[in-house]
Amino acid sequence: MKIAILIYEGLTMLDAIGPYEVLSNLRDSEVYLVAKKKGVITADTGFASLKIKYDFNDISKADILVIPGASISFIKVMKDKTTLDWIKKVAKTTQFTTSVCSGSIILAATGLLDGLKSTSHWKSINLLEEFNAIPIRERIVQEGKYITSAGVSAGIDMALYLCNELAREKETKAIQLLLEYDPKPLYNAGNFTTSEPQIVKIAEKKLQSNAKKSMNLFQLLKNRKILMKIK
Amino acid sequence: MKIAILIYEGLTMLDAIGPYEVLSNLRDSEVYLVAKKKGVITADTGFASLKIKYDFNDISKADILVIPGASISFIKVMKDKTTLDWIKKVAKTTQFTTSVCSGSIILAATGLLDGLKSTSHWKSINLLEEFNAIPIRERIVQEGKYITSAGVSAGIDMALYLCNELAREKETKAIQLLLEYDPKPLYNAGNFTTSEPQIVKIAEKKLQSNAKKSMNLFQLLKNRKILMKIK
Repeated sequence: MKIAILIYEGLTMLDAIGPYEVLSNLRDSEVYLVAKKKGVITADTGFASLKIKYDFNDISKADILVIPGASISFIKVMKDKTTLDWIKKVAKTTQFTTSVCSGSIILAATGLLDGLKSTSHWKSINLLEEFNAIPIRERIVQEGKYITSAGVSAGIDMALYLCNELAREKETKAIQLLLEYDPKPLYNAGNFTTSEPQIVKIAEKKLQSNAKKSMNLFQLLKNRKILMKIK
Repeated sequence: MKIAILIYEGLTMLDAIGPYEVLSNLRDSEVYLVAKKKGVITADTGFASLKIKYDFNDISKADILVIPGASISFIKVMKDKTTLDWIKKVAKTTQFTTSVCSGSIILAATGLLDGLKSTSHWKSINLLEEFNAIPIRERIVQEGKYITSAGVSAGIDMALYLCNELAREKETKAIQLLLEYDPKPLYNAGNFTTSEPQIVKIAEKKLQSNAKKSMNLFQLLKNRKILMKIK
């Protein structure tokens, strides 16, 4: 089982590392973190960097493809022809093509979600319509071989859901136990549809602050048109 | 708010990246991933590497210290005097010193948990007694400024708990919403105390397989005595 995870400058680390941690525990799995160019890739916070060993030339097939999201740089990636072409090429070979958070917008930009129900982070979900995908506010949305998921931490649930599709109940439960995934959040505050407006405002400010960290002003201005739609 | 996360060869990525993702969204936080030596550090699966910019000489103080765990290499780290000395030095300056998974065993090895209730991954928790800590099978255990947590994914809950200690309810809820942390695991299989023996066996095999990947045979033999205790 060959699993490819797209890595790009400014990604949200947990979007990639949640599914990585789950899927690397699947029996006989090999996980490849793949970027356009090998080398050091820094996350949206600026506080963490991955060293990437595989580029688009190294990996052209996968059983599972995972596209993680970003605070803002997904906007750059979703317009990058080389990346979109690579996703389309790999997606032809997959058993499942998946996305986490605003990674769904990148996936939608390839056209592969055209006419399909899909989901994304609550802040970026409306952008799915720009690419003829049908936004659904659910944690995980499956349409055939496409599995999209909500923001950041949803990638863990999506990957466990995927394990269950691939390897069934016992294997999934064992991975869940290995990761001791018995979530006990203090508050019931992670669902956008039931969240307080005041809390949404604070979360949006944090997202903007992350966005500023991960893109320079020139790039933000260049992408102003799309940013307006997200606001 | 200066947050230091210990990084070492063979760590479990999600142990570090869960708290990183939560805490880097705290207002005015700066997160430092710190290793004994700068450079590339590879995780227990062998599938992911971090590029580390800070070493023990660069960071000697922190408001928050986080010690992540590993499939097996925590056994090496918990006997490394340089690392234990660094933890003790930084811990003197912290508001909270925390651990995830078998990171609690490393923390216990410094002596700082002597006589304190603490927790760890279900597979390594009994080792706490070797260092006079009192093992408690809970997801999060706080004793004064020490907060220890259960395996891998528990680091996310621990970091949100910590946010709540530091910044109170609204900030914590906003971070939870930003990460869309509204967990919906397919199965209720992440808690060791209620798990089926058959599932525990599969999970243990996976852990052994990860351990083999991240340590060579020589090191395993050298640490056989301690491994016996884990088994």
